[in-house]
Amino acid sequence: MCRFLVYKGTNPILLSDLILNPTHSILTQSYDCRLRLDSLPHNGDGFGVGYYTTPTLSTEPCIFTSTTPAWNCVNLSRLAKKTASSLVFAHVRATTSGALSESNCHPFSYGSLMFMHNGHIANFKKIKRAIVSAIRDEYFLMVEGSTDSEWAFAVFLDTLHSLGYLPKSPPGEGAGGGAGGGFGHGVLRQAMLGTIRRLNEFLDAAGTGEPSLLNFAATDGHSVVCTRYVCSSTDEAASLYFSSGTRFHEYKEGGFYRMERHDRGQDLVMVASEPLTFERGLPPQPPRQSPIY
Amino acid sequence: MCRFLVYKGTNPILLSDLILNPTHSILTQSYDCRLRLDSLPHNGDGFGVGYYTTPTLSTEPCIFTSTTPAWNCVNLSRLAKKTASSLVFAHVRATTSGALSESNCHPFSYGSLMFMHNGHIANFKKIKRAIVSAIRDEYFLMVEGSTDSEWAFAVFLDTLHSLGYLPKSPPGEGAGGGAGGGFGHGVLRQAMLGTIRRLNEFLDAAGTGEPSLLNFAATDGHSVVCTRYVCSSTDEAASLYFSSGTRFHEYKEGGFYRMERHDRGQDLVMVASEPLTFERGLPPQPPRQSPIY
Amino acid sequence: MCRFLVYKGTNPILLSDLILNPTHSILTQSYDCRLRLDSLPHNGDGFGVGYYTTPTLSTEPCIFTSTTPAWNCVNLSRLAKKTASSLVFAHVRATTSGALSESNCHPFSYGSLMFMHNGHIANFKKIKRAIVSAIRDEYFLMVEGSTDSEWAFAVFLDTLHSLGYLPKSPPGEGAGGGAGGGFGHGVLRQAMLGTIRRLNEFLDAAGTGEPSLLNFAATDGHSVVCTRYVCSSTDEAASLYFSSGTRFHEYKEGGFYRMERHDRGQDLVMVASEPLTFERGLPPQPPRQSPIY
Amino acid sequence: MCRFLVYKGTNPILLSDLILNPTHSILTQSYDCRLRLDSLPHNGDGFGVGYYTTPTLSTEPCIFTSTTPAWNCVNLSRLAKKTASSLVFAHVRATTSGALSESNCHPFSYGSLMFMHNGHIANFKKIKRAIVSAIRDEYFLMVEGSTDSEWAFAVFLDTLHSLGYLPKSPPGEGAGGGAGGGFGHGVLRQAMLGTIRRLNEFLDAAGTGEPSLLNFAATDGHSVVCTRYVCSSTDEAASLYFSSGTRFHEYKEGGFYRMERHDRGQDLVMVASEPLTFERGLPPQPPRQSPIY
Repeated sequence: MCRFLVYKGTNPILLSDLILNPTHSILTQSYDCRLRLDSLPHNGDGFGVGYYTTPTLSTEPCIFTSTTPAWNCVNLSRLAKKTASSLVFAHVRATTSGALSESNCHPFSYGSLMFMHNGHIANFKKIKRAIVSAIRDEYFLMVEGSTDSEWAFAVFLDTLHSLGYLPKSPPGEGAGGGAGGGFGHGVLRQAMLGTIRRLNEFLDAAGTGEPSLLNFAATDGHSVVCTRYVCSSTDEAASLYFSSGTRFHEYKEGGFYRMERHDRGQDLVMVASEPLTFERGLPPQPPRQSPIY
Repeated sequence: MCRFLVYKGTNPILLSDLILNPTHSILTQSYDCRLRLDSLPHNGDGFGVGYYTTPTLSTEPCIFTSTTPAWNCVNLSRLAKKTASSLVFAHVRATTSGALSESNCHPFSYGSLMFMHNGHIANFKKIKRAIVSAIRDEYFLMVEGSTDSEWAFAVFLDTLHSLGYLPKSPPGEGAGGGAGGGFGHGVLRQAMLGTIRRLNEFLDAAGTGEPSLLNFAATDGHSVVCTRYVCSSTDEAASLYFSSGTRFHEYKEGGFYRMERHDRGQDLVMVASEPLTFERGLPPQPPRQSPIY
Repeated sequence: MCRFLVYKGTNPILLSDLILNPTHSILTQSYDCRLRLDSLPHNGDGFGVGYYTTPTLSTEPCIFTSTTPAWNCVNLSRLAKKTASSLVFAHVRATTSGALSESNCHPFSYGSLMFMHNGHIANFKKIKRAIVSAIRDEYFLMVEGSTDSEWAFAVFLDTLHSLGYLPKSPPGEGAGGGAGGGFGHGVLRQAMLGTIRRLNEFLDAAGTGEPSLLNFAATDGHSVVCTRYVCSSTDEAASLYFSSGTRFHEYKEGGFYRMERHDRGQDLVMVASEPLTFERGLPPQPPRQSPIY
Repeated sequence: MCRFLVYKGTNPILLSDLILNPTHSILTQSYDCRLRLDSLPHNGDGFGVGYYTTPTLSTEPCIFTSTTPAWNCVNLSRLAKKTASSLVFAHVRATTSGALSESNCHPFSYGSLMFMHNGHIANFKKIKRAIVSAIRDEYFLMVEGSTDSEWAFAVFLDTLHSLGYLPKSPPGEGAGGGAGGGFGHGVLRQAMLGTIRRLNEFLDAAGTGEPSLLNFAATDGHSVVCTRYVCSSTDEAASLYFSSGTRFHEYKEGGFYRMERHDRGQDLVMVASEPLTFERGLPPQPPRQSPIY
């Protein structure tokens, strides 16, 4: 199963401090045993990182994807050491749907929007045609790869559109948009909930019993919404953790990172499939690092 | 635009004699100026070769595709020097639809069937949804990439199915199948003509004016059918040549190959987007190397 | 650390029965936890398989290498299902010396010779210049990549040369060559022992204390020699197993393979870093599957 | 033969304005006929771009290399649209020495230094061992690939070292270093001239007649030195152009760029194997775009 990571902070973070250096970084997770235990032999791997640069360059995220395993990708290593951003998505793929291809690597983007998925849509093939039929042409035609996740993104865009927001035209600040620009977290949340509702309808209509794991993350470059969701009342959702604090830094050489929090500050938030560090309960004010329910 | 090449012979040919060595081989065409003149800057390239081995190993073709340019692909070079086959498809991609991805490289295969396309479907995006809606689930779900060509193959498979032939179950020899095994060229031809007819119907319904270039090649491992077709009564189809003879060999060192024919023998047939050699009219019995109309 | 596998049999084996299907195949080892436990985060991976085809096509091995992880490589999967050979080398890379590059993937070849290495030369950088200075120009210039293993192969070729055998000119059968053609196992063994002796001399001169792991396999297409060696009297060599029997086959669906032996037949021999199957002691005549000392 | 491009400006330029958009950009040159005319069939291609970010992130350049053809590389396209820099090296490979591998892509870097080469060292194999023997261990061991160019860079580093400057320790401003930081252009020039002198000595000793083409570019992140040089008194060096002005911009949609100069300003300098635009002699103050002698 995949792993993902979200960083949003007041200050930019060097990508290598997020994805390369921590001993239990998302990159390390890509070959760590814990990850591999649930993997099938014919997994399709891949890696992707998306980040926003300064708005003067572009409001769109810059996305780097790689079918080379993340831990081997020289370009990723070099870029991460020279690139800083205040809003980063990172994703490691290890799933069974869709061939190994850059088109199948997360995060996906459309205009200023970025999206990724950890989990899978059960019996996706049974609902693929229903998705195709239900969404507008522009999102149907946007899909380049063959993953359930990219189609879920297409549903998300179509749902946003149905809410009255054109995905390529985020409203300006104040004009119905979020205070910080973009669509605002309220709109993104509505679109996300609508996406899950529609996927559930497709799944119910197809009568698939197996639960789908729908941990999604979406952003417009300003706000981020994440879900930890399973289409079942008895099964557990895939893990998802968040942590907030003042800074995320290497307190001991060798990749030992932890979140620190001073004066109740919450200058940065991280959300991840697995905790980036096993440090917990650091006095005096332990950062919260707990599953999201 | 792409280039393709078909070889079918009584005897196997070493792949390198077909795709690597000839001075004007399909591989050479992949970087030759003549090819590039019609290319746009953001072409998606790629290469593929498919061939049948001995039936004891498999009735399915072995397909090697590469997003590395053909002329740089060490694996292709090594395999071609050690592999011989009596029925070979080779394809160089240089088109505008579909990202660079192994999923987008021709030839495509399904069971024992193999398919490739030189040309493009004009305004493919306008008919994509119609194709999706018209074909059976199994062919809809087969598509992994994002090319018009793979969808044309899906239409071909669906058409074959409608004719009463399950693509994965070629009839045995004598049992309605071709004398040499497989579906027989009659059935393949019917399926191919039906495919073009349906594509024309989709295009007519969408009202796209620009002509589509539909040079296709399909085989079941026994028979091969090729089309040279343009959806227009005034425009010309993309070039396609064929040549038959007794052997295709290097008559002068340095990659100078030609077809020879002795005693009216037609032990091998080649079909190619461009002639593999500029030799013509060799006495006493010049091989025919002429456009297919 | 790497893993390798050698197959030599009277009859050809389908590559997929060797490297894809067995539950504990070399390919599975490439992501299995047991393997990863000794891996460092920044390993360079890669995969390679080399095999001999019929002598009429070539006396040289056909080598397919991939920097895509073996379990994701569509080409490998397709080729393995359609290719059979009587003499196969396969190798999974997971080492710390040399970047991810096809030039760094094993097996290496030179003329009809093929070579691979499981282990590493300790403090290779301290002896690299000595190797460079000690070997003939043609083997110095042959090296394309940056691994210790390829340089060990260069030493092997140079040692063979010093024994009076030009690596590109195997003696004919009877003319000093092996009964079955090629150099004969006696010559290959001499060259291999000489290679290890020279590497030890370089290491001694450099005064490196850490033990080097020198499990090598070399073949001329007829004979195979393998070593299980560590440059230390106290440390243990890397594991290496061999097994011989009548056939290696899937006795239970789901990738459960085992070696069988009937009538004391030894029609095939396999050598591998790890046993391909955990089946042991099958009555009545258990195949030997034991470490090589 | 390769192509390279250097940009140095007071202001950062968006990489896409340099390497993607211009109709005759270095990327376009990578498939343009003019380039291909001198190419052999088995060229090894590849692409690389190196740029300096803000010193607060790193004094080292960020390098992105790709064995995917530049015009097909989605990551390059996405990065170039979101990345700006004041000092950029770009390189397209089309040469005969060294396999297709990221290790063989220019520019090369070492600490804060960056280096690239357009041309080739004639009969490089004849002098490779002399180079290996002449340089210090650290530069000998730095080489990862198999190109003549990377070895020329090793000679450059060794020469700089011999001049009393450790390549990894650029002197601070004022402390013998350049006014703007780094080694200063005087030191870089000395090192470059020394490099060419040593290469000539190696070539003379080997007695190779064929002229070597030594167009090099080197930078420490502050100063840039370029050479247009051929080891011959009768042959012509490979082309190299420079242009300076106030801004390089798209004066007409469709990738039509030109250099403008106002008030004798020289805010930016570009050096390229081929002119990026065929615009010449623009009144009133035509930018100089002429071969460098």
